[in-house]
Amino acid sequence: MEFANLDFDRKNRTGFPEVIFCQGKMDDFLVDIYQKMYERDGCVFGTRATEHQYEIVKAVLPTATYDKVSRILKAKKPDYKEQELIGNVAVLTAGTADIPVAEEAAQTIEYFGSRATRVFDVGVSGIHRLLENVDTLNEANCVVAVAGMEGALASVVGGLVKAPVIAVPTSVGYGANMGGISALLTMINSCANGISVVNIDNGYGAGYIATQINRLAVH
Amino acid sequence: MEFANLDFDRKNRTGFPEVIFCQGKMDDFLVDIYQKMYERDGCVFGTRATEHQYEIVKAVLPTATYDKVSRILKAKKPDYKEQELIGNVAVLTAGTADIPVAEEAAQTIEYFGSRATRVFDVGVSGIHRLLENVDTLNEANCVVAVAGMEGALASVVGGLVKAPVIAVPTSVGYGANMGGISALLTMINSCANGISVVNIDNGYGAGYIATQINRLAVH
Amino acid sequence: MEFANLDFDRKNRTGFPEVIFCQGKMDDFLVDIYQKMYERDGCVFGTRATEHQYEIVKAVLPTATYDKVSRILKAKKPDYKEQELIGNVAVLTAGTADIPVAEEAAQTIEYFGSRATRVFDVGVSGIHRLLENVDTLNEANCVVAVAGMEGALASVVGGLVKAPVIAVPTSVGYGANMGGISALLTMINSCANGISVVNIDNGYGAGYIATQINRLAVH
Amino acid sequence: MEFANLDFDRKNRTGFPEVIFCQGKMDDFLVDIYQKMYERDGCVFGTRATEHQYEIVKAVLPTATYDKVSRILKAKKPDYKEQELIGNVAVLTAGTADIPVAEEAAQTIEYFGSRATRVFDVGVSGIHRLLENVDTLNEANCVVAVAGMEGALASVVGGLVKAPVIAVPTSVGYGANMGGISALLTMINSCANGISVVNIDNGYGAGYIATQINRLAVH
Amino acid sequence: MEFANLDFDRKNRTGFPEVIFCQGKMDDFLVDIYQKMYERDGCVFGTRATEHQYEIVKAVLPTATYDKVSRILKAKKPDYKEQELIGNVAVLTAGTADIPVAEEAAQTIEYFGSRATRVFDVGVSGIHRLLENVDTLNEANCVVAVAGMEGALASVVGGLVKAPVIAVPTSVGYGANMGGISALLTMINSCANGISVVNIDNGYGAGYIATQINRLAVH
Amino acid sequence: MEFANLDFDRKNRTGFPEVIFCQGKMDDFLVDIYQKMYERDGCVFGTRATEHQYEIVKAVLPTATYDKVSRILKAKKPDYKEQELIGNVAVLTAGTADIPVAEEAAQTIEYFGSRATRVFDVGVSGIHRLLENVDTLNEANCVVAVAGMEGALASVVGGLVKAPVIAVPTSVGYGANMGGISALLTMINSCANGISVVNIDNGYGAGYIATQINRLAVH
Amino acid sequence: MEFANLDFDRKNRTGFPEVIFCQGKMDDFLVDIYQKMYERDGCVFGTRATEHQYEIVKAVLPTATYDKVSRILKAKKPDYKEQELIGNVAVLTAGTADIPVAEEAAQTIEYFGSRATRVFDVGVSGIHRLLENVDTLNEANCVVAVAGMEGALASVVGGLVKAPVIAVPTSVGYGANMGGISALLTMINSCANGISVVNIDNGYGAGYIATQINRLAVH
Amino acid sequence: MEFANLDFDRKNRTGFPEVIFCQGKMDDFLVDIYQKMYERDGCVFGTRATEHQYEIVKAVLPTATYDKVSRILKAKKPDYKEQELIGNVAVLTAGTADIPVAEEAAQTIEYFGSRATRVFDVGVSGIHRLLENVDTLNEANCVVAVAGMEGALASVVGGLVKAPVIAVPTSVGYGANMGGISALLTMINSCANGISVVNIDNGYGAGYIATQINRLAVH
Repeated sequence: MEFANLDFDRKNRTGFPEVIFCQGKMDDFLVDIYQKMYERDGCVFGTRATEHQYEIVKAVLPTATYDKVSRILKAKKPDYKEQELIGNVAVLTAGTADIPVAEEAAQTIEYFGSRATRVFDVGVSGIHRLLENVDTLNEANCVVAVAGMEGALASVVGGLVKAPVIAVPTSVGYGANMGGISALLTMINSCANGISVVNIDNGYGAGYIATQINRLAVH
Repeated sequence: MEFANLDFDRKNRTGFPEVIFCQGKMDDFLVDIYQKMYERDGCVFGTRATEHQYEIVKAVLPTATYDKVSRILKAKKPDYKEQELIGNVAVLTAGTADIPVAEEAAQTIEYFGSRATRVFDVGVSGIHRLLENVDTLNEANCVVAVAGMEGALASVVGGLVKAPVIAVPTSVGYGANMGGISALLTMINSCANGISVVNIDNGYGAGYIATQINRLAVH
Repeated sequence: MEFANLDFDRKNRTGFPEVIFCQGKMDDFLVDIYQKMYERDGCVFGTRATEHQYEIVKAVLPTATYDKVSRILKAKKPDYKEQELIGNVAVLTAGTADIPVAEEAAQTIEYFGSRATRVFDVGVSGIHRLLENVDTLNEANCVVAVAGMEGALASVVGGLVKAPVIAVPTSVGYGANMGGISALLTMINSCANGISVVNIDNGYGAGYIATQINRLAVH
Repeated sequence: MEFANLDFDRKNRTGFPEVIFCQGKMDDFLVDIYQKMYERDGCVFGTRATEHQYEIVKAVLPTATYDKVSRILKAKKPDYKEQELIGNVAVLTAGTADIPVAEEAAQTIEYFGSRATRVFDVGVSGIHRLLENVDTLNEANCVVAVAGMEGALASVVGGLVKAPVIAVPTSVGYGANMGGISALLTMINSCANGISVVNIDNGYGAGYIATQINRLAVH
Repeated sequence: MEFANLDFDRKNRTGFPEVIFCQGKMDDFLVDIYQKMYERDGCVFGTRATEHQYEIVKAVLPTATYDKVSRILKAKKPDYKEQELIGNVAVLTAGTADIPVAEEAAQTIEYFGSRATRVFDVGVSGIHRLLENVDTLNEANCVVAVAGMEGALASVVGGLVKAPVIAVPTSVGYGANMGGISALLTMINSCANGISVVNIDNGYGAGYIATQINRLAVH
Repeated sequence: MEFANLDFDRKNRTGFPEVIFCQGKMDDFLVDIYQKMYERDGCVFGTRATEHQYEIVKAVLPTATYDKVSRILKAKKPDYKEQELIGNVAVLTAGTADIPVAEEAAQTIEYFGSRATRVFDVGVSGIHRLLENVDTLNEANCVVAVAGMEGALASVVGGLVKAPVIAVPTSVGYGANMGGISALLTMINSCANGISVVNIDNGYGAGYIATQINRLAVH
Repeated sequence: MEFANLDFDRKNRTGFPEVIFCQGKMDDFLVDIYQKMYERDGCVFGTRATEHQYEIVKAVLPTATYDKVSRILKAKKPDYKEQELIGNVAVLTAGTADIPVAEEAAQTIEYFGSRATRVFDVGVSGIHRLLENVDTLNEANCVVAVAGMEGALASVVGGLVKAPVIAVPTSVGYGANMGGISALLTMINSCANGISVVNIDNGYGAGYIATQINRLAVH
Repeated sequence: MEFANLDFDRKNRTGFPEVIFCQGKMDDFLVDIYQKMYERDGCVFGTRATEHQYEIVKAVLPTATYDKVSRILKAKKPDYKEQELIGNVAVLTAGTADIPVAEEAAQTIEYFGSRATRVFDVGVSGIHRLLENVDTLNEANCVVAVAGMEGALASVVGGLVKAPVIAVPTSVGYGANMGGISALLTMINSCANGISVVNIDNGYGAGYIATQINRLAVH
């Protein structure tokens, strides 16, 4: 870990612990970070992990667990005490293919100590599915709307709720979706108010912001 | 008119008369076309006309009329007999700024002999406005959905009706709308079925196709 | 299938049964959907399936069949009675490499109960091949024009027929075709009338709309 | 106002009054909306107005005022009582050319009843200017970061504060800034957490979201 | 003319005289170049000239002539003897709006001493117009195909003739034509052989290459 | 071969035999075409072939040969008589990585009966290498300039020779080369005259046009 | 000047005085800055100024001078003593239309105290013009290469000199030059070494860096 | 090595030896170049090498060494004498994932005889990490700033140091980073002065220029 310049002060400055972005990390390096953070903090939370990465981390930290859908790789000491969940963030998806990104968001929210309410597969091509959930949405302090293809979900939700909407475009789709750029543009150009946007497939980022907002609402 | 190679056979081949795309036509040339077609057909229909073009055409064809909103410039002989309107095409807009494109579509539909039902300002940021009109939409043989900004209207409509939806992206918006490219991408990537797309601001083209479909439904 | 929010009302609302977009679906999830829909409807129709997906579905539904060209994976009960085909939709391709997308369109049209007439490999670089088929095209209520590379086929067809043309750009080509974006732009900017466009390689979507139009013409 | 489908229920549903996007509105139409809303609500707030629009509105509503920098056009009855401002939102700009967008945001925040703290011209090319304001930033419940050119401000701020950051790319710049697309991409790809993004030059949208968040924090 | 580094050797090296690209040249500078080249060569040929530029050049060189359509500004001494025209280049346009670019090409070809045969307004939406001219095309040593919107003309021509085709995309169109980029992509991706492409609206460049080819065929 | 609509008249119409674009062709289909054309014409020429395709063709046509560099797969009867080569086309590359595309061009030229003179690795970063070959270039009737990365070679060559230059951008490079789009744009915007451009990596297309021009010069 | 947060420490930190980017600055604001900096420093240097801005500054600072070509607006006290010029930077242009950007660079270099050697109109379509200047280029510590259209100049220069080359793409050109993006991509993808790139038309930025490098070479 | 046109004069002309860009080179060809240059120069330096390439080179040149991080493949004779390192170039990265590109830069700098000071993982989301290193940066004659994602590092560094900054965008990131295009645009549009940019992931190119500048400063 000679190169990494870990930001030990991050938690004080921002109120959030360090999280590992596993994608592309070299094996030795990843295992080393997991071990160091496990010792220091008692719990390590990594996103975009592969099954291979799970195996190499598990080899040294046998308590490690891996969720195939969200691709989150977690390791915590047996005596590590999780926070009680506060408030409420609604996490929506347009389709089932958007669920991996939504789960990354929801589990991030939970890891950071907020409650996540999942409302999946409520895309606009069958608008009644969304309308049936309006009351659920209006109970949340923040809504995370995850959608690929044309990404229209965010605009419809924005017009239905009082809470701020964090829109997450996904790379789900094909052809002119251009790897999610199309959904991103839809969300950025939304005719509805109260919508702001994060990077394509960035469930973690959306979960982070939703937590910030939920904490403000609760505290 | 020495350069123009008018397609006199078009009506027989396609079932539609020639229409003038006025934008960018040189003055002398435009007046000449209007006069020749007025003599031959008794009625001339031009799109994307300016007020200046209206004035120069009116100078030689005093019956000419101009609609500022749709920018349609029409000249017909006093004894020209319009067709009776058949069937029904619904023309929707997301916002009021999309109305000029929608009017180009609706008046094209009417010029080609079909009935147009206007349902304007029913964008998805206030979804109840659209839902209140579902019955009206379901009475149409074809729906033209006109929307700028993020263009989400088409997807929601596509999930609500049985009829085919012709989606028209508009250049309404700013910033990352990129002159309508964003709304075009939204519509092309729609998660709903039954949606096909024409060029940005192409109300005329949408009206043409809607007429083709409406005629098939009526005949 | 805990996450999937199946749209059971879809057939009543839109007149079309649910179709499975197989691409990217997880194994367990796919098998589960196929089984549930097989029980409920007696027939399941999926697009963009892989050979692997065929095998896992066949393991539980031995009547399943798979077409390598169109990549359609179908399972129907022995006593399931297919509809009689009505009307006529012409499905064209520019080249032989566009046939997989065209077959997805044609088989979708047939699955939804309309007749499809295939006219393949009639691209504009040998225009006589297309011209020899004009009578065939004019017998159809709708034309689906499938083309990659520069996608010029749609424009030429649009000028030759009375019926509406659904243009399908394909990702066939290389270099500046940008995965089909170039053909999409060609079709969207067509100088011919009566052309509307669906997403790149979206044979299914084109088949769906063509069926809507064909039904309107027949009923 | 025959075409406009005003969303009278909006305030109940979303907690915010209707705001007029003046850009591109036809004269008669704009004056009509201002008059109707003035009567109904006692106060009208419009963004992206021109000086010409100010003059025609002032002609019928003499209390109308116009701010050249933010381009906000306001009309309120003499007896209209503004809300007391609550909480605190910090509004930052990278340069002086970004101030019009920032003022649109700040005045929107104030119109919606929240307090705005302006911290202008603290771009990253002289990072000490930003660092001197860290305490001010940390007193806010939400930070709006407005920046054109390369838009790096948002990332640096994101790493310095606990509050969520709403990033607003502006079209300030030239050449490869592509009208703000470059700054938008910078902000969407930010390496810092807690950043979400709105459309280019969308000060109003940022102000709206910041108000939502600030209200959650105060209530 | 202190800055300009005129390429006096060009004619020997390339076989073509210098031509002035008038667009954006400062007044004094333009007049100076015209005068110097008029003295030296007896004839000056400039493209993309404005009416204003015509007037200032005419003030010093009264024999100057200007063609509004092609925007070519020519000045030649009364005793300047033009070459006899050799060979044959066909210059086609898809629509009438493409004629200015085609005339720039045709007049360039003539200025460089080759014969140009104009075949205008033969776009693919009325394919019979092009087919009626196949014999004319096959008499040419080179074909210049000028087309905006979707630019499909080049592909159809490429499949009909033996001669090489120089394709010129134009900026004619709107919406997703992106100032001609769409037509350029169409031509670059052409499924037909024997097509090469020059810049958008570059009639001069096409005329130059067509002349090179025509000369090779004649000599 | 039920789907393929072979263009048997092509040779009469265009003067060139059919050539097989092997990329993406299904095995059975490819073997079938090779066999049919072998019988009919005595020689088959295919581009973009893989080693696997070579093996399956060789299994049925043992005279088949494959060139790894150009990826050309050829099969000719032992008694097939090749044409004598006429004229001269220079084929240049900027770097060694561009050679596969240049060989596709050169071998196409030779297959079509013209002489190709190879001048490889003369990119502009060592301009003396190109200048040493100016005499060779000036002996050619046409120059094919193949270059990736920034593609500047075409512009420099265009200013040095009398013959027309066919520019071939390649996908050689990385990062902002965007798969060859950057080199394509360079060549399309060339400040030099006499340059026209084909698709990225389209050595075959360049060879075809160069042959057309060379034939015109010789005959 | 209440909003502007002038960076008084800049000179100490970076070694360069503040320079005014005049484009888009409001009148009062601009005059105010010029006056304040004139008083403080004795000399003010502004880029991208209009003639109107020159007039309003001259009204309060009569010594102000304006160069139409470079658009630089300078005001210095009669007793202000300019530095003696050191070292040598070569400033090249491809064409005459690139001279305004080159002059912005050259005059910036001179204002910052370095010597600039201008070598204009040496574009690659007449490569001998550049080769004749190789000795001049090799006397410079840094070369600024300014080019629009395809921007190939930078690559050729990079292969000819030992000094680092700062490449400046310009917006000169039309069609697919996309406002200079094409030249920018050319320069970024250069096959030559020793080239780095600044924003489109950014003569000032190039002059700044060239000065940094020249100072390092001299000191 | 029949095709390669090695530039033997390069060292005299530019002051730098030839370096091998290994990516995509065919095996035989690569081994041949390594052998020839090893014999001639005593040392060969190649970038973007794979482990496979290392193995085949090592088989013939057993002294070959390979660095997995930078992917540099070096072979030098036992008696080859490296130059003493001069001056100082600082090489920065925003994150740990940018280190491979930075190492390519740093080792290139060292190979060319300059000293490189590594300052890694100092991205702007934890700005204190960068600020702690300002003194180190100010000791360098040139700074190489390597950053992916949004690439904001370059702008902040540009405002902190006197030395010129060579900015290297990397392809690190996902979604809207578009393979590094986003970071490239950020750096090109930087609001800070003294920044010029090389291609995405072009550590070698940055190292080359930094060496040029460092040599000028030392000599």
